[in-house]
Amino acid sequence: MQRPFPATLLYGGDYNPEQWPTEVWHEDMRLMKLAHVNMVSINIFSWALLEPEPDHYHFEQLDGIMDLLAQNGIMADLATGTASPPTWMSHLYPSLLPVTREGVRMSHGSRQHYCPNSPDYRRKTAALLERLATRYAQHPALKMWHLNNEYGCHTGSCYCENCAQAFRVWLEARYHDLDTLNFAWGTNFWSQRYYAWEDILPPRISPAQNNPGQTLDYWRFMSDSLLACYRVEEDLLRTITPDVPLTTNLMVAFKPVDAFAWASHMDIVSFDMYPPITARPSETAFSHDLMRSIKGGQPHLVMEQSPSQVNWMPQNPHKRPGRMRLHSLQAVAHGADGVLFFQWRQSKAGAEMFHSAVVSHDSSEQTRIFQQAARVGAELRRLAPHVTGSRVQAQVALLMDWQNWWAVEYQPGPSSRLHYWQLLLSYYHALHDLNVAVDIVAPDSDLSGYRLVIAPLLHMLRPGVASNLEQFVARGGSLLTTFFSGIVDQNDHVILGGYPAELRALLGIHVEEFDPWTKEMTNSVQIAEGNMQGTYPATLWGELVHLEGAKALGVFSCDYYANHPALTVNRFGQGKAYYLATQGNDELIAALTNHLCTEAQVAPVLNSPTGVEITKRVHSDGSELYFLLNHTDQPQSVTLPAGCFTALLDDKAIEGQVEIAAVDAVILRKNP
Amino acid sequence: MQRPFPATLLYGGDYNPEQWPTEVWHEDMRLMKLAHVNMVSINIFSWALLEPEPDHYHFEQLDGIMDLLAQNGIMADLATGTASPPTWMSHLYPSLLPVTREGVRMSHGSRQHYCPNSPDYRRKTAALLERLATRYAQHPALKMWHLNNEYGCHTGSCYCENCAQAFRVWLEARYHDLDTLNFAWGTNFWSQRYYAWEDILPPRISPAQNNPGQTLDYWRFMSDSLLACYRVEEDLLRTITPDVPLTTNLMVAFKPVDAFAWASHMDIVSFDMYPPITARPSETAFSHDLMRSIKGGQPHLVMEQSPSQVNWMPQNPHKRPGRMRLHSLQAVAHGADGVLFFQWRQSKAGAEMFHSAVVSHDSSEQTRIFQQAARVGAELRRLAPHVTGSRVQAQVALLMDWQNWWAVEYQPGPSSRLHYWQLLLSYYHALHDLNVAVDIVAPDSDLSGYRLVIAPLLHMLRPGVASNLEQFVARGGSLLTTFFSGIVDQNDHVILGGYPAELRALLGIHVEEFDPWTKEMTNSVQIAEGNMQGTYPATLWGELVHLEGAKALGVFSCDYYANHPALTVNRFGQGKAYYLATQGNDELIAALTNHLCTEAQVAPVLNSPTGVEITKRVHSDGSELYFLLNHTDQPQSVTLPAGCFTALLDDKAIEGQVEIAAVDAVILRKNP
Amino acid sequence: MQRPFPATLLYGGDYNPEQWPTEVWHEDMRLMKLAHVNMVSINIFSWALLEPEPDHYHFEQLDGIMDLLAQNGIMADLATGTASPPTWMSHLYPSLLPVTREGVRMSHGSRQHYCPNSPDYRRKTAALLERLATRYAQHPALKMWHLNNEYGCHTGSCYCENCAQAFRVWLEARYHDLDTLNFAWGTNFWSQRYYAWEDILPPRISPAQNNPGQTLDYWRFMSDSLLACYRVEEDLLRTITPDVPLTTNLMVAFKPVDAFAWASHMDIVSFDMYPPITARPSETAFSHDLMRSIKGGQPHLVMEQSPSQVNWMPQNPHKRPGRMRLHSLQAVAHGADGVLFFQWRQSKAGAEMFHSAVVSHDSSEQTRIFQQAARVGAELRRLAPHVTGSRVQAQVALLMDWQNWWAVEYQPGPSSRLHYWQLLLSYYHALHDLNVAVDIVAPDSDLSGYRLVIAPLLHMLRPGVASNLEQFVARGGSLLTTFFSGIVDQNDHVILGGYPAELRALLGIHVEEFDPWTKEMTNSVQIAEGNMQGTYPATLWGELVHLEGAKALGVFSCDYYANHPALTVNRFGQGKAYYLATQGNDELIAALTNHLCTEAQVAPVLNSPTGVEITKRVHSDGSELYFLLNHTDQPQSVTLPAGCFTALLDDKAIEGQVEIAAVDAVILRKNP
Repeated sequence: MQRPFPATLLYGGDYNPEQWPTEVWHEDMRLMKLAHVNMVSINIFSWALLEPEPDHYHFEQLDGIMDLLAQNGIMADLATGTASPPTWMSHLYPSLLPVTREGVRMSHGSRQHYCPNSPDYRRKTAALLERLATRYAQHPALKMWHLNNEYGCHTGSCYCENCAQAFRVWLEARYHDLDTLNFAWGTNFWSQRYYAWEDILPPRISPAQNNPGQTLDYWRFMSDSLLACYRVEEDLLRTITPDVPLTTNLMVAFKPVDAFAWASHMDIVSFDMYPPITARPSETAFSHDLMRSIKGGQPHLVMEQSPSQVNWMPQNPHKRPGRMRLHSLQAVAHGADGVLFFQWRQSKAGAEMFHSAVVSHDSSEQTRIFQQAARVGAELRRLAPHVTGSRVQAQVALLMDWQNWWAVEYQPGPSSRLHYWQLLLSYYHALHDLNVAVDIVAPDSDLSGYRLVIAPLLHMLRPGVASNLEQFVARGGSLLTTFFSGIVDQNDHVILGGYPAELRALLGIHVEEFDPWTKEMTNSVQIAEGNMQGTYPATLWGELVHLEGAKALGVFSCDYYANHPALTVNRFGQGKAYYLATQGNDELIAALTNHLCTEAQVAPVLNSPTGVEITKRVHSDGSELYFLLNHTDQPQSVTLPAGCFTALLDDKAIEGQVEIAAVDAVILRKNP
Repeated sequence: MQRPFPATLLYGGDYNPEQWPTEVWHEDMRLMKLAHVNMVSINIFSWALLEPEPDHYHFEQLDGIMDLLAQNGIMADLATGTASPPTWMSHLYPSLLPVTREGVRMSHGSRQHYCPNSPDYRRKTAALLERLATRYAQHPALKMWHLNNEYGCHTGSCYCENCAQAFRVWLEARYHDLDTLNFAWGTNFWSQRYYAWEDILPPRISPAQNNPGQTLDYWRFMSDSLLACYRVEEDLLRTITPDVPLTTNLMVAFKPVDAFAWASHMDIVSFDMYPPITARPSETAFSHDLMRSIKGGQPHLVMEQSPSQVNWMPQNPHKRPGRMRLHSLQAVAHGADGVLFFQWRQSKAGAEMFHSAVVSHDSSEQTRIFQQAARVGAELRRLAPHVTGSRVQAQVALLMDWQNWWAVEYQPGPSSRLHYWQLLLSYYHALHDLNVAVDIVAPDSDLSGYRLVIAPLLHMLRPGVASNLEQFVARGGSLLTTFFSGIVDQNDHVILGGYPAELRALLGIHVEEFDPWTKEMTNSVQIAEGNMQGTYPATLWGELVHLEGAKALGVFSCDYYANHPALTVNRFGQGKAYYLATQGNDELIAALTNHLCTEAQVAPVLNSPTGVEITKRVHSDGSELYFLLNHTDQPQSVTLPAGCFTALLDDKAIEGQVEIAAVDAVILRKNP
Repeated sequence: MQRPFPATLLYGGDYNPEQWPTEVWHEDMRLMKLAHVNMVSINIFSWALLEPEPDHYHFEQLDGIMDLLAQNGIMADLATGTASPPTWMSHLYPSLLPVTREGVRMSHGSRQHYCPNSPDYRRKTAALLERLATRYAQHPALKMWHLNNEYGCHTGSCYCENCAQAFRVWLEARYHDLDTLNFAWGTNFWSQRYYAWEDILPPRISPAQNNPGQTLDYWRFMSDSLLACYRVEEDLLRTITPDVPLTTNLMVAFKPVDAFAWASHMDIVSFDMYPPITARPSETAFSHDLMRSIKGGQPHLVMEQSPSQVNWMPQNPHKRPGRMRLHSLQAVAHGADGVLFFQWRQSKAGAEMFHSAVVSHDSSEQTRIFQQAARVGAELRRLAPHVTGSRVQAQVALLMDWQNWWAVEYQPGPSSRLHYWQLLLSYYHALHDLNVAVDIVAPDSDLSGYRLVIAPLLHMLRPGVASNLEQFVARGGSLLTTFFSGIVDQNDHVILGGYPAELRALLGIHVEEFDPWTKEMTNSVQIAEGNMQGTYPATLWGELVHLEGAKALGVFSCDYYANHPALTVNRFGQGKAYYLATQGNDELIAALTNHLCTEAQVAPVLNSPTGVEITKRVHSDGSELYFLLNHTDQPQSVTLPAGCFTALLDDKAIEGQVEIAAVDAVILRKNP
């Protein structure tokens, strides 16, 4: 990270003053101070105002906004404004509009209506940004660049002629010659062989399932295409404003964008966090851990969260009192150094007019929502000096891989019920319930700092991944992987000779058959002894597993593989490699996770009652902060380790036992 | 109404002799007399026969049909025949075919395959109609014009280039300049600002939700576009046949056509009535009350009902014996002066060959269906001299607004569960169960004749509506409105400063938050005292309501707004304004409606057992007709008011108590 | 059948060596011998390899494959390779790609991406095939031609301009003049009349339901268009290799292809059999009986079945142990003389890489799947000399008609719940449970060899069908037909004058009304006396039936046709004609079927416990083979007729009683 995170806890939100008369701007400054706002994101959807006709730029209004922010000591997270081209542009360059797989060209009239491979789009983007960056390079309000907005949102894939052309270029760079491409895509199947580059198309709608290799490459290509748009902006900004950090708001569980590949191009990782009101606390925690991990543990930023209700779910209830505050403190607890809202002031028109904002349609500072936001602002300001500089430390890694996600969910077959993200979450939930700190990392990353690695459904083994896992275990680590892992290589070719191929020695097993279940089919895992003893319902999947050195800890209870292994463990070097040949219920996953943590000597941050989340941030000098978050509707109490603590939110000394009110948090500094 | 309704009860149906050899026509005349038919609708889908090649017209067959009707004393409701252009026309003018939002151009091969903004369609329509009207202007059979057919059916919206062009013209007429349009649509949001009229498009498919202002205007524009087609025909006919009344068959609960706006162009309101067999009697009653109300209480006409089964529902059971007769008499009971069928003789081929008709495939007069139809014909002939000239009178108005419908169901957000028509029906059902007469009127209409006004979900307040309601209440009226009302203006802009904005003083409340519920969320309304005392389940929606002068009659029972107001009443001038901040269950709506009627001194026509509907039609001399309709499968008895009555269907004298057989009706004239 | 079936039981599968290096080919030969393979299907998707650029052909690889097969004594079922054009071809001839009803042109990238009416496709097909056939005409491996592959799969209908043009030619051939076409389609309805051939289009998407006559003709036309593609190949092959039998793999329950019309062009009927793992044994039995019947009882061939799991269902569990073997033996039991797999060796890439194969990704001969396949191969080899030449004989015919299927499921109306195939199956299940042999034949076929004919939902009576049925009954046959039968003629015109029209005299009834039920509606059939006595729930449909000579055996129990006939029987000539005016539950259908068989003196092959299927094949010398298939998971025993039997699979003598293990079969030769 060349350009550092501002040394404070950021607080604020998306600010769209162009929707309001200037008298409202001054009222906004007053209210922002009341709410302890120190940063706002501006200019996100202003292109139509900045360039009202081709090559005529008007920055006067933006000048005024920037000056106003500077005068009021509020930092600008200045957006490049490139997420939605003006309406005249799609009229002038019709091929700029994206096209669906079925060949339907989108219209303007909403937002983000551009094909990422449109040369016109990229050229006009650069032209705008060059002027914008030059104009504000020295402006005192400029503290961060916000590139575009939610790359890929609504249009994760385009299938137009621009994309077809760019895809061919991308493929030539990857494969060099057609024979290699034909091999990679397996085109001797179904008479698909290519003899000329120009015959290659995006995986547009066709009579049957498209070639899986082509489709996988299209996922890769589209993520790269979006990244190429980002990099047009990045390159300009690194030249014109080399000291201003860059970010863009990722969308976390967003399949089209491989966040691991993007992270190195971002100075600060930020993301948009919109949990449904029924989300478990571990779901948001998972997002934070992933966003923190992709940048190696550096602090991340919540670029958008909603003060209360959103407007794009089927029904949009309000966040219940206290929940937004708890989400905000949870962000910090997991390593974020800032929380911003979408948006500051609620629109009175347009497609988001019923999305909540800090300042609602009431225009009042007396509302429940404003009052809560102001309280959080005050608390973050109080916490900032204690928190900044501290980091979360984890001994457990959960492996996550976008390419695996793309491959496994397009597989021609086994089961439509495999949802990679949900399977990852099922293990994360269990770790979260244990209050164990977790990093979410790529399978080819350095695992030497971890004691336990969990890799659910690691279907695709890219080059080096198997040996990376072997080394990790050989040196004493514990590994768990699960069904349908180790099946294909990076070309989505099955690795022959017996599943799970490159993991066979490590796991000490051979899988003869995998058997995806319909919803009506059931089975269970029987564990005869030990701390996991019991019978656990299993779902989704069964396998016919043969032992090749591993020991069966559990077996399937019925069907034609009854009494065959369902859960195995294999000693490998100094460590152990576990394999679960099905998807267990929550109870089995909890028991297994607990067993693995115990065995790997991974301790929870603290023990806590159910529903109380506990995390720790540590400074480089070893001083510690504990975050205790009570997500339940009842007061809870937690036994503290020996020593004296200071509760930072109310500056009280605490020892032994701490009470936490319902939907409340206690943040403790351990006194030396 | 310049051209009066024929002074009788009309009876007959759609008649398509062009599908049959001429010998069948003579048999039809014989059977029509048996069934007491006095009017048929002809020429609806005959364009292809009238103009077999461009500009060559053949009226010989239609001459024969018109003459035959005249000879047999049957009135012709002569259709203009413009609803389905010939196949050669879509070949000659491909842009005449409508285009979906996704850009798919429809083909001919079914019906009504025209874009309402096609200049070719309008020109050819006028050319045909001028010849048709001139030819039959003096024909003795011509008694009514039937313009086109079910305007908007199948193609409520078209998105082609013709429409784009016409939309721009329409917008220029509405907004005059682009700044005003940009303000109205809120285009500073999402970089949507327009700098040239030609950049404006229909709300075609785009990556995210289209601009709500644009979409609302497109609803308005398409209703106006269809009306413009109607007016092409209207203008010609008012010139050529100034004394023949005009109608077109509306479709009642049909969102694309704003019947209030159309009514002034029609001499007689007619509509098509196709209740599913599971429909409650109040659903058809609602249709009648609306169709009567849009023309200020003048008699309306059922242009189409099915003698028995239809063919376009997923499954199409027959109407059970007696139900068609009861529907027909209910029409008259609610102010209709005629009932026609689709269709007279069942087709043997084509897409409606399994839609029932008076004369079925049996070709026999002995069928259950024919016999029932003939009975209804005889009864209407008997009733005609007593009924014509009488009117329904109501003291209760239910407010209904197409623009509100368009706005509230496209709102970007709060809830996908808001179905305006269903919410209107929920209140109408309760009024209907009370046998209270109801008009369904627009919110800006004259309310001075009513004692009670109910305005469910009056989300959009167009200019003047709030003051209209205030005046109504100030002068002593009772008003009920419900959740999410008073939110936006005619531009679909939220009115700032606290919901429900312009209704805040009238209702004496301030709504801080509205909270749309998912299906899983529940709450209830507790009413502690009075005649509505009880606890009632609530659905759909909650609100955080503050009293500003109003009194809370009921409160929410749980969640974060527990004990906050759910049902309020505010004295305003001489009247009272009620607000229900949720959707109650049937029981609550019934209790509330009953309370409001009692308080407003609105009496039922008569008290009756459940399932017996009672209405009254009154002559200008004050003489009264009572319609008692027993929708149940058991006989029922009703206590009459003092006085002597004559049962018109069987000419019996009745006093005190009247018995009504199952699925039967008694129609009473009160003797002087 | 000019060219005979090879006089053995065929065994093998699809073989795609072009996906593998040549060293694998030799291993394949070794393994095929282990598995007793005697035939493989090759070259199915090889066009891109055979013609890598326009008009340059390369057969070298295929030469090698053919030679290898010949050397190893394996017969080649040589595919014409025309099912998937090379990618360069769709680039060169874009109009070769098929177009959906909505106007979306498909892309290449999967398979079978051709419009059957593309002149380019047909020309290139013929050019390839001429070279291919000439080259291998004398090759010793060539034993059968496999034309194309699964005609119509994925693209049962195309709606492009090629098709529009060809449709007009087809219509001119059928109707000669436009007046006849207009009459047939009933175009005076909805202004649809055609005055020029060029105005006629495929039934593309249009605002409302397309003309039913046009749509029915489009089904006919598309089946004929696919057949025309087949015939291009057939004509060439009959010239070049007049002695090699032709087949193509049909898909049985495949609505677009009228197998009866195709059968005369095939020497051997083959089909693909992919039952879901939940399928009842009678579903596969039904497929076999249909495929055997369309070629008059000649042996048919299973061209594809899956060794275990498939890959294209939502979830794809493995076939449980033994089931594949039982399916294979069931095929032979129903008259098949061969069973092939898709596919021999499991692909490592492409859209079918998770479809099971005889040689799985393990590449091993030790797998459960290979071992089972090898056992079946050995058993078929053992059975072959006993089985070849024998035939199945049936006294019961179930009538099936593709044109009826097309008509009844597009009907504008009565019910969306009529699924012709399911209704056929409901009667077949009952016959199968009785172990009664059944042929599935067209309604206009020779019925003189049967004692009982069942014709569910015979909605369309093509010319001659009614008299065919009358003659069958008059001569002493028993006929059952059911609700909504006898309604339309071959033009899809209702036959007027009272349903069921041409069947009225035969059935002795008159149906005044048919009443399709919603899911919520119920009724039942009461049978007061006789061997079917009881009350049976009915679904789907009721009718108001009047007797005209028939006798009511059962009546409806409620609704307005309570006590009206539901099940009738009419003596007609020497026979009896039954009518069931609803769809009974399984129990009623079983009782009725049993009654009919008893009355018609149709005996089961043998009596058996539930779940044990028994069939018989008979040689021309009268010698008999019994197939006893135990589909249950328990052992079962069956009492044999008097005499001595030899169990062919293990060469044991058996008398009196035979035990059959769970999921096992016993095949008995009756000793003279």
